[in-house]
Amino acid sequence: MGRSYDTVSFLSDLGTTDEMVGVVKAVLRDLAPHVTVIDLTHGIAPFDVRAGSLALARAISYVPSGIVLAAVDPGAGSSRQAIAIEVADGEGIVIGPDNGLLAPAVAMAGGAGRTILLDHTEHHLPSPGLTFPARDVFAPVAAKLCTGVDLFDLGTPIEPDLLLPGVVPLSREEAGVMLCEVLWVDRFGNCQLNVGPGEVAHWGDLLSIAAGDPNDPVRRSGKVVDHFGAITTGAVGLVIDASGMLSLALDRRSAAEELGIAAGDMVVLSPLTDGPPGVTTPVTLRH
Amino acid sequence: MGRSYDTVSFLSDLGTTDEMVGVVKAVLRDLAPHVTVIDLTHGIAPFDVRAGSLALARAISYVPSGIVLAAVDPGAGSSRQAIAIEVADGEGIVIGPDNGLLAPAVAMAGGAGRTILLDHTEHHLPSPGLTFPARDVFAPVAAKLCTGVDLFDLGTPIEPDLLLPGVVPLSREEAGVMLCEVLWVDRFGNCQLNVGPGEVAHWGDLLSIAAGDPNDPVRRSGKVVDHFGAITTGAVGLVIDASGMLSLALDRRSAAEELGIAAGDMVVLSPLTDGPPGVTTPVTLRH
Amino acid sequence: MGRSYDTVSFLSDLGTTDEMVGVVKAVLRDLAPHVTVIDLTHGIAPFDVRAGSLALARAISYVPSGIVLAAVDPGAGSSRQAIAIEVADGEGIVIGPDNGLLAPAVAMAGGAGRTILLDHTEHHLPSPGLTFPARDVFAPVAAKLCTGVDLFDLGTPIEPDLLLPGVVPLSREEAGVMLCEVLWVDRFGNCQLNVGPGEVAHWGDLLSIAAGDPNDPVRRSGKVVDHFGAITTGAVGLVIDASGMLSLALDRRSAAEELGIAAGDMVVLSPLTDGPPGVTTPVTLRH
Repeated sequence: MGRSYDTVSFLSDLGTTDEMVGVVKAVLRDLAPHVTVIDLTHGIAPFDVRAGSLALARAISYVPSGIVLAAVDPGAGSSRQAIAIEVADGEGIVIGPDNGLLAPAVAMAGGAGRTILLDHTEHHLPSPGLTFPARDVFAPVAAKLCTGVDLFDLGTPIEPDLLLPGVVPLSREEAGVMLCEVLWVDRFGNCQLNVGPGEVAHWGDLLSIAAGDPNDPVRRSGKVVDHFGAITTGAVGLVIDASGMLSLALDRRSAAEELGIAAGDMVVLSPLTDGPPGVTTPVTLRH
Repeated sequence: MGRSYDTVSFLSDLGTTDEMVGVVKAVLRDLAPHVTVIDLTHGIAPFDVRAGSLALARAISYVPSGIVLAAVDPGAGSSRQAIAIEVADGEGIVIGPDNGLLAPAVAMAGGAGRTILLDHTEHHLPSPGLTFPARDVFAPVAAKLCTGVDLFDLGTPIEPDLLLPGVVPLSREEAGVMLCEVLWVDRFGNCQLNVGPGEVAHWGDLLSIAAGDPNDPVRRSGKVVDHFGAITTGAVGLVIDASGMLSLALDRRSAAEELGIAAGDMVVLSPLTDGPPGVTTPVTLRH
Repeated sequence: MGRSYDTVSFLSDLGTTDEMVGVVKAVLRDLAPHVTVIDLTHGIAPFDVRAGSLALARAISYVPSGIVLAAVDPGAGSSRQAIAIEVADGEGIVIGPDNGLLAPAVAMAGGAGRTILLDHTEHHLPSPGLTFPARDVFAPVAAKLCTGVDLFDLGTPIEPDLLLPGVVPLSREEAGVMLCEVLWVDRFGNCQLNVGPGEVAHWGDLLSIAAGDPNDPVRRSGKVVDHFGAITTGAVGLVIDASGMLSLALDRRSAAEELGIAAGDMVVLSPLTDGPPGVTTPVTLRH
């Protein structure tokens, strides 16, 4: 017997308007009654592997020891593999599809340890179809791991180097401006950028912001602040957010709506010059 | 004392935008602290007994031993009865309104055993109104059952034959076509039909599909496949879904949107002839 | 060591479309593994302290002994204080921001006992920003309380009289009419008013209702009933709801939609006269 676990942290794009998430938790309860499930979120947009991988990466350092079950899996049933990856010397095991969803979180947790393909089908549920691996593969495997079955009894070991890498967009400084991307728009309309305050600190506290349509961006100035209340009414703030990144934010209003931007959109930060904010800085947005 | 239970599986149309579901779970926690609640879903459309009954029927075979609490109950407080039904020799007890919501799940679980009306009001919460039986009747009764109170101590035995039957629409073959109904549209836009692959297997893998407005249906051809990735880009697939039924699906897009259909709509399947898909098949959709 | 607790009831405006609520629960699980979390709701509209305080007040009498964690906190990170308030001789401790969110629930629970500012930062999580106190302050403090740390070890005692009061709008009778406000629109479109049946009982069972735009209100008559099914088809009912208040309701349809009203809107009730409903009653709606 291997180590056993008592927590499954569960993230998916399954939504909660029907019984799919409930059925996965029912299977876990049935096979491993001692386990508590933490729902990280099931609100990832359908098929959005990128958004799921970023949410999982933001959450991973807060997740308790145990199993992480992640299901954003548009290729369910196809040739994409189901995998399980040990992290942090066995403190955790991450289960999901090999489509890049798990990679950023695994990297944040210190990298992949023992890794398997979930190909020992005798540990899965007999299933009328191939379309619901969260219920039929991931959940029963998670339950087995919780009850002390060793990872290597549940599938064929593989080299972690063979896994599909995740895609975490990096910001870059170029020609005196910082080219960023919106990683995440939260419920309040705050737009997390892929840049931390340290990377733009040499430009001071006041920055020029160009957001939205590259050919006709919305231009604003913004101040780096540490909480929403420090944003002047009507102004755009660059808040140091709960992940330590800069987020475009307004006080009690949606920056995403005000600036017309969404996850994946580009934002250009630059030093605030003496002229009207942003206008004197020749900015070309590129994809 | 009867048998005791430690799991309550909970399905409702109460939503999660306010505290109603939370209060039901608070009552369960208060009266039976040892119990774990599995939220099957609370996203059933308001008052939609049919959708609730189908979701419960899809879930029931995965639900662990224990209590099932189901509340889609537009007639709350009226003459409709509150009931509890033992299933599977006492492995489970299903609690809810006698409005057809429970019937398909009870049938899936092998049929009704001991059945009572929840008319012993001394086991209910004192309540300022009659409008919230999930909180005031179903939850305290579920808690009592979990702590070992026998079913017959909680209400008057009745004959299960007297319960309102559920309505599960059946597909039927007629004049060389299969008349189906959309049972459920999931979050991804897949449209589950009330027909399994075996019922149309004699027509081969390629079928003609007529969906939407009976007078002017959208006509497409579709292939029976076992996972979403096997659907050709842009084509409609007939995927063998996680319930073993055929679901109209597109790869990573919403079939419901593409075909303009919703739960309850009719879909006609027929053999694919040599002519343009569907056009040479005279189909009259009927209600 | 103080008393320990095993339940945290959690209400917020954080939503469930991303991982924020999940991360708070992960922190609780990590620091106090024995605790069960009851999600009261996370669907409070962003920044809506009033709606959050009313939902918490409606829920509080059903919440089990333990910690209540409430996070509707538009001023997070600013000078607003984080607080914890003992209620009911230590049966419960309510944690959240000092912005009026907690006040109505604390009053419902019998008033504030020992109260502290959460200013002992050594009990909080080290955090990259100030914007997520639910994760970094409220959750670790809740966990400490659950494991038996005494309230006074977690912050500086303050006088409860210094806390920001909540705002619970009161109805008032004036010039022969009852001026009410919509407290809450539930998922079904029922509109809870801030008036109980006893306050209008002297006018009989049939009342005149003026709702919506004060200059051009929708006028209807409505009957006081005790369940939705007792409302005549198409008519507006005044249902004695699950909080013991009057709710404008229609049978299986949304009264909010029919009457064009939302939370915070005014509604005027008056005796039904012999003329056409409402028309003969000169009503002036005031804010």
